[in-house]
Amino acid sequence: MEWFDGSITSVKGIRASGVACGLKKNGEPDLALIVSERPATAAGVFTRNLVKGHSLQLTMKRISKGQCQALVINSGNANACLGEAGLSDARTMASLAASQIDCAPELVLVGSTGVIGQPLDMQAVRDGIEAAARSLGDSAEHGHQAERAIMTTDLVPKEAVIRFQIGSNTVTVAGMAKGSGMIHPNMATMIGVIAMDCAVSQPVLSEMLRRVSDKTFNRVSVDGDTSVCDMVIALANGLSSSTLIQSGTAEADLLEKALERVCTRLAKGIAADGEGASRLIEIRAEGLRTQRDALLIVSAVARSPLVKTMMAGGDANWGRIFTAAGYSGAAFDPDGCDIYLGSVKVCERGTALAFDEAKAAEALAQKEIQIRLAFREGDAAERIWTCDLTDEYVRINGSYRS
Amino acid sequence: MEWFDGSITSVKGIRASGVACGLKKNGEPDLALIVSERPATAAGVFTRNLVKGHSLQLTMKRISKGQCQALVINSGNANACLGEAGLSDARTMASLAASQIDCAPELVLVGSTGVIGQPLDMQAVRDGIEAAARSLGDSAEHGHQAERAIMTTDLVPKEAVIRFQIGSNTVTVAGMAKGSGMIHPNMATMIGVIAMDCAVSQPVLSEMLRRVSDKTFNRVSVDGDTSVCDMVIALANGLSSSTLIQSGTAEADLLEKALERVCTRLAKGIAADGEGASRLIEIRAEGLRTQRDALLIVSAVARSPLVKTMMAGGDANWGRIFTAAGYSGAAFDPDGCDIYLGSVKVCERGTALAFDEAKAAEALAQKEIQIRLAFREGDAAERIWTCDLTDEYVRINGSYRS
Repeated sequence: MEWFDGSITSVKGIRASGVACGLKKNGEPDLALIVSERPATAAGVFTRNLVKGHSLQLTMKRISKGQCQALVINSGNANACLGEAGLSDARTMASLAASQIDCAPELVLVGSTGVIGQPLDMQAVRDGIEAAARSLGDSAEHGHQAERAIMTTDLVPKEAVIRFQIGSNTVTVAGMAKGSGMIHPNMATMIGVIAMDCAVSQPVLSEMLRRVSDKTFNRVSVDGDTSVCDMVIALANGLSSSTLIQSGTAEADLLEKALERVCTRLAKGIAADGEGASRLIEIRAEGLRTQRDALLIVSAVARSPLVKTMMAGGDANWGRIFTAAGYSGAAFDPDGCDIYLGSVKVCERGTALAFDEAKAAEALAQKEIQIRLAFREGDAAERIWTCDLTDEYVRINGSYRS
Repeated sequence: MEWFDGSITSVKGIRASGVACGLKKNGEPDLALIVSERPATAAGVFTRNLVKGHSLQLTMKRISKGQCQALVINSGNANACLGEAGLSDARTMASLAASQIDCAPELVLVGSTGVIGQPLDMQAVRDGIEAAARSLGDSAEHGHQAERAIMTTDLVPKEAVIRFQIGSNTVTVAGMAKGSGMIHPNMATMIGVIAMDCAVSQPVLSEMLRRVSDKTFNRVSVDGDTSVCDMVIALANGLSSSTLIQSGTAEADLLEKALERVCTRLAKGIAADGEGASRLIEIRAEGLRTQRDALLIVSAVARSPLVKTMMAGGDANWGRIFTAAGYSGAAFDPDGCDIYLGSVKVCERGTALAFDEAKAAEALAQKEIQIRLAFREGDAAERIWTCDLTDEYVRINGSYRS
């Protein structure tokens, strides 16, 4: 299994494009089209927010059939909270894309991300879809363009491509994602597309995507908010290997491992590129009685603005970490908790250690930092990725619409 | 019932002082002493954090007896996560104060707020307690000094005094509080002391304080964090009126009303003085099926960094408010939600309105702003106070220990 330097188009039979159609005021790319040569098996995971964008609602409905040939995704506008017009616009987007690439409209999924409550400029969308269809291609650059077109406040594209063998066939799994602010488990302001050219049954793909998302995209927290437009869609078009991968086989294990590696890279990329972030932080809790306790702790620590600002300042104020664990709702004995900043142990059995401040400062100055809480309750462990909270986050989010 | 311009010492038989003993590196006041002429009936509410500071643990234990004659509170150090030494230091603080004012050590309650995990400088504390005992007095200024000595990152003192008649007796209820960052319902990094000179039975005082705290201090959110040292202590010394106020009487209603007004003023003061805050925000949710649903919604909106930064920027990006309601865990039909920024309705039945941006900007420019979410589910309503999130918050919390 090897990393490959490419993009979503590295997958056999996948073409892509990204264009600027004017939905973003700054003229950056804002409409992406991703097309499979033939209808692909499709699965998705979606936001658990009660409020759901219209494009997302349409996609949730259509994906229940388990098939997809194309995705059209716009950034700059969430197409949410617009009543009947929003749903109608989402349908129109799909139909326009379908007529351009000549497939059934039901096989087109739609995604939108951006500001809520502003009507989509459908003339711009129409022109954008036509332009995107004209510029479809299968070079790596075409995939990069699609990625750039789904980004909002992201600074860095998130793409990952991995290859492995199934018998004599080379299978490629490639992912692209956007996501920066408004990220918290479950599916928070992110859109992800994963394509693969193996063949896999819909239930197997669906279960695999759910399991892998729970370990990757659902273990990222930027600011604790979750959005109304978040989705990850997986497509398997079977163009490199038509042998259907069955549940419980060595091939299925291999594919799931590849999918997890791709999604892990995308998820960590999202955390590292959190709005205004200067560091990627992995928070790990271990030695808890239950998985739920461990998850409560890492989520509370990842979400705490006090922990996140302390990390931005490189200040070893570990009491805030312990405090967040304490109000997380998890059950544990505070007198059994050890805390590490990188490799520096700062607290043992709930009591402060006289640690070396210079070493702690050095640990906190790294671009990637692990915070670890070790308890003495049991064997359950969890980890989550997050980032620090800087004044840049405040600047970005104080005037997002303008 | 009338507001009175004073401090905690406006209550009969209450003396106070505040001194600088060196726990705060910048030389500001950091040790407060509050003494009642005679043992008072006492009740408290405390943090629900699993991790608890040593001073707080001692106070929780001692208050179970229902009596208190003095409080000694230090800022600059939380006296937390220090093992046996922490508990021993808390006991020593109480004993030192007791010997200075000549009462039983069990009648002295202790509070500490500040950095976690750093041993208390007990020589400084000893000198501080002696100095504070020497400078005890009952002028309003003495109370103001005590208030200043419990403040940490607070910019503004929070004090409130109210007077009312019970028969021919004038009863005074006075409160002082600190709290700025790390504030979220339940008792988040705040310390509050409420004194009154009426006589009231311990169970009545205790229940009253709990009910009122739930409506006031537990309805404030600054950053969603909750601390390990938070407490509100109420003392009733019976020096102005020795008639014991009984449960269910008109006097009890009057006292509870006075207590609620004092605590409301302190709680709103805490929200308005949130670290780096430029505005006080009241978030109200109404028309829900249950109180719990309403509380889930106002808490999620108050805690959302995206909502808080949007308020700092004065940007009417109301989709973030709706989004936070959507992931709050509350049950509601999104198509039945109206949203108001001040008096400007921006969303009706879950759909964007073409509102007047200038009017919305004007509403958001106020120092006090109400965000209101009106649903069509039932009659339950809740409100919470919070503040905006500015780059000043990040600056303050990036280097709190230094």
